[in-house]
Amino acid sequence: MTNHFKTLTAICALTALGACGDTSSQSDRTHTAASLDAEASIERPKYNVTTTESFDASVFGAYEGDHSAVYAHIDANIDDHVGHLQRWLRQRSISAQNDGIQEMAELVRSDFEALGFQETAIVPTDGHPGVWGYLDQGADKTLMVYMMYDVQPVNPEDWDSPPFEANIVDHELGKVIMARGAVNQKGPQRAFLNAVQSIMAVEGKLPVNLMITAEGEEELGSPNYPQIVDQYEDRLKTADGVIFPFPSQGPTGGANMILGVKGILYYELEAQGGEWGGPAKAEIHGSFKAIVDSPVWRLTQALASLTTPDGNTVLVDGFYDGVRPPTAEEQRLINGVAANWDDAGMQGQFAVSRWIDGLTGKDAILEMLYTPSLNIDGIVGGYTEEGVKTILPHKALAKVDSRLPYGLDPDAVLAKVRAHLDAHGFSDIKVTKLSGYPAAQTSVESDLVSAVIRVFNKYGHTPSVQPRIAGSAPFYQFTERLNLPMVPTGLGYGTGAHAPNEILLIEPKDDTGAASLAEMEKAYVDMLYALAAAGRAGK
Amino acid sequence: MTNHFKTLTAICALTALGACGDTSSQSDRTHTAASLDAEASIERPKYNVTTTESFDASVFGAYEGDHSAVYAHIDANIDDHVGHLQRWLRQRSISAQNDGIQEMAELVRSDFEALGFQETAIVPTDGHPGVWGYLDQGADKTLMVYMMYDVQPVNPEDWDSPPFEANIVDHELGKVIMARGAVNQKGPQRAFLNAVQSIMAVEGKLPVNLMITAEGEEELGSPNYPQIVDQYEDRLKTADGVIFPFPSQGPTGGANMILGVKGILYYELEAQGGEWGGPAKAEIHGSFKAIVDSPVWRLTQALASLTTPDGNTVLVDGFYDGVRPPTAEEQRLINGVAANWDDAGMQGQFAVSRWIDGLTGKDAILEMLYTPSLNIDGIVGGYTEEGVKTILPHKALAKVDSRLPYGLDPDAVLAKVRAHLDAHGFSDIKVTKLSGYPAAQTSVESDLVSAVIRVFNKYGHTPSVQPRIAGSAPFYQFTERLNLPMVPTGLGYGTGAHAPNEILLIEPKDDTGAASLAEMEKAYVDMLYALAAAGRAGK
Repeated sequence: MTNHFKTLTAICALTALGACGDTSSQSDRTHTAASLDAEASIERPKYNVTTTESFDASVFGAYEGDHSAVYAHIDANIDDHVGHLQRWLRQRSISAQNDGIQEMAELVRSDFEALGFQETAIVPTDGHPGVWGYLDQGADKTLMVYMMYDVQPVNPEDWDSPPFEANIVDHELGKVIMARGAVNQKGPQRAFLNAVQSIMAVEGKLPVNLMITAEGEEELGSPNYPQIVDQYEDRLKTADGVIFPFPSQGPTGGANMILGVKGILYYELEAQGGEWGGPAKAEIHGSFKAIVDSPVWRLTQALASLTTPDGNTVLVDGFYDGVRPPTAEEQRLINGVAANWDDAGMQGQFAVSRWIDGLTGKDAILEMLYTPSLNIDGIVGGYTEEGVKTILPHKALAKVDSRLPYGLDPDAVLAKVRAHLDAHGFSDIKVTKLSGYPAAQTSVESDLVSAVIRVFNKYGHTPSVQPRIAGSAPFYQFTERLNLPMVPTGLGYGTGAHAPNEILLIEPKDDTGAASLAEMEKAYVDMLYALAAAGRAGK
Repeated sequence: MTNHFKTLTAICALTALGACGDTSSQSDRTHTAASLDAEASIERPKYNVTTTESFDASVFGAYEGDHSAVYAHIDANIDDHVGHLQRWLRQRSISAQNDGIQEMAELVRSDFEALGFQETAIVPTDGHPGVWGYLDQGADKTLMVYMMYDVQPVNPEDWDSPPFEANIVDHELGKVIMARGAVNQKGPQRAFLNAVQSIMAVEGKLPVNLMITAEGEEELGSPNYPQIVDQYEDRLKTADGVIFPFPSQGPTGGANMILGVKGILYYELEAQGGEWGGPAKAEIHGSFKAIVDSPVWRLTQALASLTTPDGNTVLVDGFYDGVRPPTAEEQRLINGVAANWDDAGMQGQFAVSRWIDGLTGKDAILEMLYTPSLNIDGIVGGYTEEGVKTILPHKALAKVDSRLPYGLDPDAVLAKVRAHLDAHGFSDIKVTKLSGYPAAQTSVESDLVSAVIRVFNKYGHTPSVQPRIAGSAPFYQFTERLNLPMVPTGLGYGTGAHAPNEILLIEPKDDTGAASLAEMEKAYVDMLYALAAAGRAGK
């Protein structure tokens, strides 16, 4: 189970987004005991699982296709395939530092071209460019593939092997490739293209058409990815599903599958002196607090008005309204997840003594996946170093996020927060949205997902399927906007995303369990054929 | 009036003090609407001025003594006197960086010796040493002089003249000496000793005995000054009063006098994950907020429980109890202050639109000087840089101070805060005291103050006398512990304490108004004689 949450941080790297905002003026300080009484009755909604049925991915059976000639081509050319990964990994593409971005975009585009894609394009956006590729194979079905060609920054001195040398390194699990982007996400993406290359070499064409959109700002929170979709939206809508090449195995081979993500609303709350009072331009001597209003107190009080004293129940009117409760399908999936859920193990991993309210097991899972949260990511104001300095700061800032389960709209939630602040006398608090998008949910019954599961089953790695994670990724672009099923998927194992010594397993030892690069590619071959057959062959 | 507040920051530089603390365990979350109802009825006490009499320092008359021979000696030797200031100012003595401290302490001690003090000593403390000097003149009266030989750090590149060269510089007000410590406080202190030197040269002895305690940690908040007093306490109690050499004029000559300071209680409130919940060791992914308690929320809620939503009324039980209301003498002084009080001018200076609750005039003065405050000096937790990062921080810290009017004990106030937190379910919040001492108050009717005022009146600078300031300094060591009247005093003008280009006026232009170094020294001569005569000659 905990691997799901690790997975989350690998695919959700939100930083430095654009801002739009809202400011207001005078407060009226109407935070009465009466309104608090009303709020005291607010409770978080409780969701239930009413079925005893538990989803088991083995029900879909195993994919029975055999593409031996393609597999053999992969095995025969595996050194070249590793070389393709190294070409991608040796090209720097740090989005946050605009380091190698243009070169990497062109490398991706030219690889599409080399593979025979009829259409390739660098796609301008307001930020780093996207890359578009379309491979028309005259097939009935079309698979959309989401890619990201950017990577996180590095501290080279922390690495055992230089992060952009992409050396093959001996590891306790076997031979691995070590590089920034090895697992997140260049490695698995180029592995997918290796699979495409081998099918074309052996069979002449793929069983499906491909549409690929690659972005160069995933590590920045995908602020401009919607602009890439804008330019191909009508055509993308004709696809049958979306995959994101993603090594889904743990080191011993166990596979996970995630069918949804929560949305997110990330904003800043800022208090600053102004017409309402407080120092407007700079800190003043702390002794003035006796007669001068404090922006830090105002922010503290505004924040505190949002939750119960334990910080766990949000008192904003309507905050919990509109969540879609667990569907029958999701309830079966939750029962499956609950069977392997380990409260104590996760708590130990995160050094947390208890979940809120002492929740455990299925109650904790439901709370995690179906309750919108309100988290303070950071707060700052005034003097925060060692020792004593006595100032009355002129401003204070909190960075806040809500994870939004399916059914909630980030802008609607933000409007409720603004209304709450105004109603409680905090109209002086400035609210600035930094990021926001809704949840995404794909059905396990979709042709795409059932086809992918059957391939996992074929390789003996029946996946643990989770209805969603509590983390966020902008997959709504696929599920809501394009109305396509979407799943991050693939055999294979890697680790170290956003950290030093990022690796992807290439050639595991006999007892490792997780797939080799060759097997990872073979599974992608099977997925393309399984998807082509899905809905025709049934499950 | 605003000069009083500038004065405050010059004499109160609190940094990096020792710590003692208190931690507790499990919270019980009992912050009920009922308790809030009770708290909603808490109001800040209102103090009143019931007299229409207004203090006017001219009532004390002018000091009539004439010490022409001494004045002439000062004038004749003024270049040497400037040289003495330069000797002190060229010796670095940055306490925060332990830069030149031992050398400066020895310089002060050896100057005492050179002046004929019978006793001089370097006084070891747990920090930087103090310096003791005793000059027995067989006089009836004894003046204690408080000195500080340390200075604030410097950024030399910000200075027009190097901070430890002590050059004489042309300034719009006349010739000034520019150096770190020029006004805060080496310059005026050595000027006082110059006055002593000229009396001894002309008259053979002083009209009073002198006890001097100098410390090297004033800029660190005087953490070990009590240890210096410890070693001479019985003898210091026999003194008749204490002065702190302090240029009290504005540039145009107007003089201020401060008879008291508020005490201070400075502490940290910290929330961290632990048995109660929350991540205990490191931040975790922000999406976990759905099932994990947040130390930042806990700190925010604990802080918010301390005040009304506007942040201006403290809800801690008994917080406002025990303040000594304005005495009849203080009421007369307040009426005097109110005559020159300029709300709009001060608000403009600090970019503050209004005082709390729209207070003005005498109401604002009373609130400033008689109400204990609760100020958040700083707050920090989690990610506070640009953009988006989604974490659930494992700890959060607030730095808080209360300015305590006469009558309140810092430890008693802290105990009330701790009790409030415990009673409101915040026993998980750790409270760590960094600094605390009570207020100090001297009567304008004391022989010391009336003698000093008569000297000011002689020079045509009848002072504006303020009963106290809202800022803090550890003058309780004199007023409460030694039971002596104490006043920071002296003619002269300087500026730039704690800032670049710190100056003391040496030779003003004809139209400047503030005193020259020579006149500053002559006034100290008069003060010694006036104090010697006080109580005998009456006022």
